[in-house]
Amino acid sequence: MPNDNKAYAKREKFYMNGKLFPDIKVGMTKVNLTPTVTKDEHGVPHTEPNAPIYIYDTSGPYSDPDFVHDPKKGLPKVREAWIERRKNDGQITQMAYAKAGIITPEMEYVSIRENMNCEALGIESHITPEFVRDEIARGRAVLPANINHPESEPMIIGRNFLVKINTNIGNSATSSSIDEEVEKAVWSCKWGGDTLMDLSTGNNIHETREWIIRNCPVPVGTVPIYQALEKVGGRAEKLSWEIYRDTLIEQCEQGVDYFTIHAGIRLHNVHLADKRLCGIVSRGGSIMSKWCLVHNKESFLYEHFDDICDIVAKYDTALSLGDGLRPGCIADANDEAQFAELDTMGELVGRAWEKNVQAFIEGPGHVPLHKIKENMERQLVKCHEAPFYTLGPVVTDIAPGYDHITSAIGAAQIAWLGTAMLCYVTPKEHLALPNKEDVRTGVVSYKIAAHAADLAKGHPGAMVRDNALSKARFDFRWRDQFHLSLDPELSLQYFEEAGHTDGEYCTMCGPNFCAAKLTHDLRKIKR
Amino acid sequence: MPNDNKAYAKREKFYMNGKLFPDIKVGMTKVNLTPTVTKDEHGVPHTEPNAPIYIYDTSGPYSDPDFVHDPKKGLPKVREAWIERRKNDGQITQMAYAKAGIITPEMEYVSIRENMNCEALGIESHITPEFVRDEIARGRAVLPANINHPESEPMIIGRNFLVKINTNIGNSATSSSIDEEVEKAVWSCKWGGDTLMDLSTGNNIHETREWIIRNCPVPVGTVPIYQALEKVGGRAEKLSWEIYRDTLIEQCEQGVDYFTIHAGIRLHNVHLADKRLCGIVSRGGSIMSKWCLVHNKESFLYEHFDDICDIVAKYDTALSLGDGLRPGCIADANDEAQFAELDTMGELVGRAWEKNVQAFIEGPGHVPLHKIKENMERQLVKCHEAPFYTLGPVVTDIAPGYDHITSAIGAAQIAWLGTAMLCYVTPKEHLALPNKEDVRTGVVSYKIAAHAADLAKGHPGAMVRDNALSKARFDFRWRDQFHLSLDPELSLQYFEEAGHTDGEYCTMCGPNFCAAKLTHDLRKIKR
Repeated sequence: MPNDNKAYAKREKFYMNGKLFPDIKVGMTKVNLTPTVTKDEHGVPHTEPNAPIYIYDTSGPYSDPDFVHDPKKGLPKVREAWIERRKNDGQITQMAYAKAGIITPEMEYVSIRENMNCEALGIESHITPEFVRDEIARGRAVLPANINHPESEPMIIGRNFLVKINTNIGNSATSSSIDEEVEKAVWSCKWGGDTLMDLSTGNNIHETREWIIRNCPVPVGTVPIYQALEKVGGRAEKLSWEIYRDTLIEQCEQGVDYFTIHAGIRLHNVHLADKRLCGIVSRGGSIMSKWCLVHNKESFLYEHFDDICDIVAKYDTALSLGDGLRPGCIADANDEAQFAELDTMGELVGRAWEKNVQAFIEGPGHVPLHKIKENMERQLVKCHEAPFYTLGPVVTDIAPGYDHITSAIGAAQIAWLGTAMLCYVTPKEHLALPNKEDVRTGVVSYKIAAHAADLAKGHPGAMVRDNALSKARFDFRWRDQFHLSLDPELSLQYFEEAGHTDGEYCTMCGPNFCAAKLTHDLRKIKR
Repeated sequence: MPNDNKAYAKREKFYMNGKLFPDIKVGMTKVNLTPTVTKDEHGVPHTEPNAPIYIYDTSGPYSDPDFVHDPKKGLPKVREAWIERRKNDGQITQMAYAKAGIITPEMEYVSIRENMNCEALGIESHITPEFVRDEIARGRAVLPANINHPESEPMIIGRNFLVKINTNIGNSATSSSIDEEVEKAVWSCKWGGDTLMDLSTGNNIHETREWIIRNCPVPVGTVPIYQALEKVGGRAEKLSWEIYRDTLIEQCEQGVDYFTIHAGIRLHNVHLADKRLCGIVSRGGSIMSKWCLVHNKESFLYEHFDDICDIVAKYDTALSLGDGLRPGCIADANDEAQFAELDTMGELVGRAWEKNVQAFIEGPGHVPLHKIKENMERQLVKCHEAPFYTLGPVVTDIAPGYDHITSAIGAAQIAWLGTAMLCYVTPKEHLALPNKEDVRTGVVSYKIAAHAADLAKGHPGAMVRDNALSKARFDFRWRDQFHLSLDPELSLQYFEEAGHTDGEYCTMCGPNFCAAKLTHDLRKIKR
């Protein structure tokens, strides 16, 4: 894939092996840099090598030039042997192993993945396999890894790790085919999506999902209520526990790594959304609210939550407790409805942990900057430090068409404060379904927000890439700059379209106005 | 201009008059909204009107359908009579009047402009003409208004007012003509640029600037050292006070409203940048640093700062104290060089105020999220609460091609903390000169950052627009949503390209999965 393109010429697929488990092979991107050449006051050049930089790589085998992809065969099953080795244990979730003091290959895998520049550059890191185990045991981190999705490369979601991003795809009857959905999944992974939610509705849900999972190197999440609703002809009030349960089992069997479950909707809380400017904006939340009101009963998701946990524990499908009452506009942020649901989610996450089910908490949505902190602080307390997974939040409602930006601002802020995973938002949010370019824009915007938070939190080695790119910029090593960037293709394209060429200044400012060139000159002036 | 387009069909140019000065006519955009129609459980419709919303409008006469533009004649001189009325006073800066307790028409103008929805909606506001006067007198706000730029509509820069944004344009020998530059200026004002910096280098600097100023309804800033450098053939060491002084006078006469002056570079501080990863990245900063080192002398800008103040005071050109040592990468943020210069700027701003010269302080640049607060707090203390005007900051260096986003994240953060004006960054920053679409993207990204900060700071009436747009969204009043948005054209375009039509759900989710539709249904369920 990437290697066809000169934008990726200095990038190489690289694998690092495990120490506890030698059959672990963690894929990453190695960026080979050109040397820095400086000239002294006599014009004599001096050459200094630049060490290669390793980049976290979510693209799986697709970026390996030796890999030949056949969508019908799917991806290599990297986790198959590990899962088989422990097949006879009674409790098979990562949390169960973690609580039992056992470090799994998945745990070592993510510890390598989180630290990729540390060893080479002598940077100390708190992220050891044992630390990973401990965070999972405490519920502070989730390693989504359905035993039926062995194609997935392990990754971890928790606030003491790199901030992750999720992307959404989903067919719609009118606008996309199954092949297109697989292509979108691969595309999202190429740009850096850490997990992928399949939000398909309409026909062919099962088959679409099967193709996506078999070809997806990252964990896949779904919202099972969508398929259940299709099974009852789109009539929310016809939903039942039995239909939902069968849907869960069907999806667990396929290998879904996490489920969004809107079990936090309580009958006595639904009316709290009446006071709102924008009511309920979560699809799952509105479906379950309708069910509760029509039947005047607690939802079957809440009532059967322990049964849900018993099912998913067999597969190690994680739970993403959906925020059905998240605010849908700035005016509704941090209101009673939202926080009442958060309290319920705190209760539920405790129940999940009792069954060794990994779980995280979904969050808003639409929140102005000054109300973001309260969201994060309250979530940590009420939900016992379970990972927070937010949708943005957008920090203003006045920019439809630019909600990747309104939300990247909020996402960076909340991730800095402790959110572990960010659900991406594309420019078309609130207006239309995203196309491929929108997905790319959304993913890159969220990689920016996540990385900004990693820097602010001081993640070990996060600054290595910024520094390498900045040094390349200052040295006029233009190509190195592009190879190190989040979007090598676009940065190269802008550079070339402008007619720039490699050299010690560029046509933007010209030689007399080039601050970098002048600085290089200054350093030659003797004092 | 806008009215040709159906994206603007419900927008109308509206003028509000002054009370202290009846000849004040503050232009704004009035958005006329359609009523909310709800149906009860029997399907009987109920109609409720929605009050019009007023939007701050930087486009000047260009958005008035009655205005016929002739670039050779320039814009109407809205401030001419006010300036003439006070022509014989000795001290003619807004700061001089403010300190003398005099409220100028410009001061009342901005008080109306800052409050446009407040009176109609009964929102209390602290921003009275007297408050404006007091903020200018204290130096906490700047009202840039060269007496030779009477075409400019008054606006105010200060942290107790709406956050403003600046856009940059500038010709380059190869890529643009004077006509194009005027068109770009108009374009920047159309999308919401509050001030405009002409950063032209190369030939025709004087003429380009003349055309821009005569046709620009917002304050125009420049960096005079650029023109001075052209006068000495691009050789920094040939610069002198005399050449610079003449350039200042020439530009004051033309009507430049504020000058970026890198007088904060001190000889003994230049070496502090040697330790940096990226050295000096300010063009003006590198030019002046070179001058200091070559001559081994304090810069003529620092030495002649009082003379500079005496010149600009005659025209009421404000000073933007340039941050020649701003950090150019994450690694260099908040370093000794940067903060040493900030101390000097604090000294200089006091000297400017003694001469009744309005002044503000330029800030970075490249700063990770967790180091932004220190920038703002230190600036307030060291520079005695003079307004802060920052370039972003970008919060990570790894995304060339997306620096409108990396920097909007930092801009929103620093503006929330108190920065008064944000200098926009386009997607092509670090790569190439922006084209028209890049300018639009940059401006809208910065309007988002500024507005996010206005909401977070609780600016009176800032939330009115968010709420109106959110209500339109919830009501499925699609066209109202677009008319209220920062980019009516793009939001409408995305909607139409997707094949959506007006109606009580859209093809994104379909009727069964439309949360808003379900919420409306829920509200009809009797309890």
